[in-house]
Amino acid sequence: MKLATRNNGERDGQLVVVSRDLQTMADVDDIAGTLQYAIEHWDIVSPALDARYQALNDNNWPAAQPFDAKRLLAPLPRAWQWLDGSAFLSHGERMQQAFNLPPIEGVECIPLMYQGCGDDFLAPHEDIPCRNSDDGLDFEGEFAVLVDEVPQGCGAQQALSHIRLILQLNDISLRALAPREMKTGFGFIQAKPSSSFAPVAVTPDELGDAWRGGRVHLPLNITRNSVSFGRQHGGEMHFHFGELIAHAAMTRRLCRGTLVGSGTVSGQDTIAGASCIAEIRALEMIAHGEPRTPFLQPGEKIRMEACTQDGLPLFGAIEQQVVIFEEYEE
Amino acid sequence: MKLATRNNGERDGQLVVVSRDLQTMADVDDIAGTLQYAIEHWDIVSPALDARYQALNDNNWPAAQPFDAKRLLAPLPRAWQWLDGSAFLSHGERMQQAFNLPPIEGVECIPLMYQGCGDDFLAPHEDIPCRNSDDGLDFEGEFAVLVDEVPQGCGAQQALSHIRLILQLNDISLRALAPREMKTGFGFIQAKPSSSFAPVAVTPDELGDAWRGGRVHLPLNITRNSVSFGRQHGGEMHFHFGELIAHAAMTRRLCRGTLVGSGTVSGQDTIAGASCIAEIRALEMIAHGEPRTPFLQPGEKIRMEACTQDGLPLFGAIEQQVVIFEEYEE
Repeated sequence: MKLATRNNGERDGQLVVVSRDLQTMADVDDIAGTLQYAIEHWDIVSPALDARYQALNDNNWPAAQPFDAKRLLAPLPRAWQWLDGSAFLSHGERMQQAFNLPPIEGVECIPLMYQGCGDDFLAPHEDIPCRNSDDGLDFEGEFAVLVDEVPQGCGAQQALSHIRLILQLNDISLRALAPREMKTGFGFIQAKPSSSFAPVAVTPDELGDAWRGGRVHLPLNITRNSVSFGRQHGGEMHFHFGELIAHAAMTRRLCRGTLVGSGTVSGQDTIAGASCIAEIRALEMIAHGEPRTPFLQPGEKIRMEACTQDGLPLFGAIEQQVVIFEEYEE
Repeated sequence: MKLATRNNGERDGQLVVVSRDLQTMADVDDIAGTLQYAIEHWDIVSPALDARYQALNDNNWPAAQPFDAKRLLAPLPRAWQWLDGSAFLSHGERMQQAFNLPPIEGVECIPLMYQGCGDDFLAPHEDIPCRNSDDGLDFEGEFAVLVDEVPQGCGAQQALSHIRLILQLNDISLRALAPREMKTGFGFIQAKPSSSFAPVAVTPDELGDAWRGGRVHLPLNITRNSVSFGRQHGGEMHFHFGELIAHAAMTRRLCRGTLVGSGTVSGQDTIAGASCIAEIRALEMIAHGEPRTPFLQPGEKIRMEACTQDGLPLFGAIEQQVVIFEEYEE
């Protein structure tokens, strides 16, 4: 099943079902008004949503509308909880090199994770606001999962059964602000503004064999100004999503609708590029003694899409442009 | 005006208005169903809420119910965003001594703040679940503010005008888990489980002169097993709430209903005790070379209350007991 959220002027938008080929979509306000409502009543509403999905796929839903990603918000426009892991170890290794950070003990045994701001996710085609050219604006291509309620102390394998939907996102990062915040030990506030999400959230069965071992075994294709930037593979994830969820749930339960991110998709094969600029800069520093690829500047365009193993649409694409943010006047 | 949230079995509870003396309360479901709804429609609903509040204070509301904190949830049972500062510098100084942490550069100029989990706040009388005796379970007595939408780039003075309500909370902390998480630079996930809140959220005018300069100029009285533990004063806050809000809003807007905490109320005057155990342990280490006050154990009781300058009820009291959490069985 594929779900998205149409912009109806409300903060949480209007849940819609999207056809498998991302050609049409259908309102489902008679079943569930919002994705958060759906996840809170999943057992009751998912059969009806699935029936609508099948009708849409069979061209058997008269009220079908053309799919238009520009009319959509993030599938979950705001989340009660957004937790982002860093489960691809090669990303961390390169960030450590790039920013001359001290090594973190036990990174192969205990997942890195931060609590992110989930109150205001950007839409798949929404502009990325940029204060100035000095913040080191970067993208991070990631996968994420949406869970139902996870009890405290839930194990990693059991945690997999709480995954309801899989998503694809751009974790926007301000690299110039991150090292200071990391040094405090308190994590990211200013360095991690709101993330953006691909238009469609999908149930795990939509990935077929590409969803196994709690990982998304698909490449994430990223272009910067229409030039290929990265094709790194989700299967390289060191910790699987169940391990990330269990890590967060060790000392507390997680509410229905909690989003858990994978961290930047990354792998040892540098021929496949990278899912963020900072990694490329780290590789350049190693090779040339200095970074050569600049961070994002106003006017630049970024596109991210992971397709199925057969090259068919899955989550749809994130397509964003960087714009100068007009300073708030008091 | 004083607001609280009655437990009606729903996740966000039912908003109620509470009389100034905390003797009675009244349903307001004809005005606003939840506190989040009220904050999202504040200009429309606050006059009607205030009228109900006045009627309640004048004993002129026939449907008034006795105030009973045990029937209440946290005023905002879950928040789209929970940001906790560390704005009392003596707290940070002592934590640094206690945990042998490296000094943080610029702590007097840039507020420390972490993004906390706000999906599942504990009620004022709810038990504190404790996995075991080794996690270093501690309380942190704090004040917090609830804001309406704060635009990106908002200045510190302007930020004060976005404060709608003031709250009092217990930021539950697991000290044994914090140093490892701080070392990663990613901030707290396991070390900061869900916080609990005093039953009543109040508009700033309820504090009278005690609300000035963006600070709560009142002592926070804390007892541990009915023995006085701390009477530290909110006026000692180094950064005021406007500065904390502006810090968070530098690179993104904050949604309506964002909660911003002060961090542990703390001051140089050690005769006034402390608002958390870790500070007392730090002082003991300095005085005796070892900490002597144990962290919280199952069965212990903690109470926190800040009253008005005249000693009258304000937020009501947090009264919690530590209980062993029964491990989840798979």
